[in-house]
Amino acid sequence: MKIYDYKMAPNPRRVRMFLAEKGTSYTQAGIEVENVDIAKGETFSKEFREISPYGGLPVLELDDGTLISESMAISRYFEELYPETPLMGTDAKSKAMIEMWNRRIELGLYSSIAYAFRHGNPMWKPVTNQVAEFAEVSGENADKQIHKLDKRLAESEYVAGDEFSVADITALCAIDFAKVIKRRIDEEKHPHLARWYKQVSARESAKA
Amino acid sequence: MKIYDYKMAPNPRRVRMFLAEKGTSYTQAGIEVENVDIAKGETFSKEFREISPYGGLPVLELDDGTLISESMAISRYFEELYPETPLMGTDAKSKAMIEMWNRRIELGLYSSIAYAFRHGNPMWKPVTNQVAEFAEVSGENADKQIHKLDKRLAESEYVAGDEFSVADITALCAIDFAKVIKRRIDEEKHPHLARWYKQVSARESAKA
Repeated sequence: MKIYDYKMAPNPRRVRMFLAEKGTSYTQAGIEVENVDIAKGETFSKEFREISPYGGLPVLELDDGTLISESMAISRYFEELYPETPLMGTDAKSKAMIEMWNRRIELGLYSSIAYAFRHGNPMWKPVTNQVAEFAEVSGENADKQIHKLDKRLAESEYVAGDEFSVADITALCAIDFAKVIKRRIDEEKHPHLARWYKQVSARESAKA
Repeated sequence: MKIYDYKMAPNPRRVRMFLAEKGTSYTQAGIEVENVDIAKGETFSKEFREISPYGGLPVLELDDGTLISESMAISRYFEELYPETPLMGTDAKSKAMIEMWNRRIELGLYSSIAYAFRHGNPMWKPVTNQVAEFAEVSGENADKQIHKLDKRLAESEYVAGDEFSVADITALCAIDFAKVIKRRIDEEKHPHLARWYKQVSARESAKA
């Protein structure tokens, strides 16, 4: 297998962290790593679009040539490959609850940050019809989502409940990604988020 | 179990169609149905936000009181409950490929239509900081995504491959939803999409 990866972006990090929680890494699992530099615009190239027609990174290439993009699709592949330490639930209810929380974080917090960045940063100009006002609104939405997440973490140890799950990975990568739109955790305003952030950042996998 | 449902919206339809593909329906499965009228603003009410803090519809209420929102999370619950006629894959590779395609449709086509609608239609004003220019850009993105889907369906019978899957349900509900932003399939411009659309619309589940 081979992975198209990039150290500095949130989606590739989600998958590395997912695999690290399984107790392994690309190198340990014998997965060849090819670096694709998003900041240099390499994901916009024609060559890369052959590998990832929707432009997403990372991409996992199986030995039969199958190309899997979308972080959650690759994570699901690894969940099947390494079923020990499940990160996506173990029965109907826990699978549904983790999927629900992961999506709330993705479609709420993560996408607000991504839209604020994409519509507000010159780096994305070549592939985005940027709308400055929407970047602004998305930043405000990100603030609201951060507030909602703090409320959730007041009542729950982890994002999806009592157990660490893929929803925590998505949330941690989103929160760290929020630096690009100059959002950081305010301990006084969001003490529960700050508590969770310390806890989850201290995991070995957070460095992956 | 109980479902909060609404006949005229695409997300509730996705879940009804998913269940219909499993050979059953809310009534047949003994699931109580409560109607929530999105057009009348009922999903914006304080009462509904207690049930669905992120505002999404449908919501499945389990007998123990657990509330599951997010169409894909509810669909995953039903996939576990009714594993015959799998719609989310059967092994690591097919699960990953279906997840990948479902996400491409959701994050590309479906969300472009939803953003064009949300930022362009007065109905959403109470809960959205509308940006007219972004509604415009999202409509153009929807057109590009429709074009991409046509290309995909030139090489594949169904969205995710040779078998009908949840990705077809998401795509069909998105395409029908596109009426709200005045997009319809143009048979001459998008013959492969038109072929697939006829085929998938003819399924009994499409009426659910």
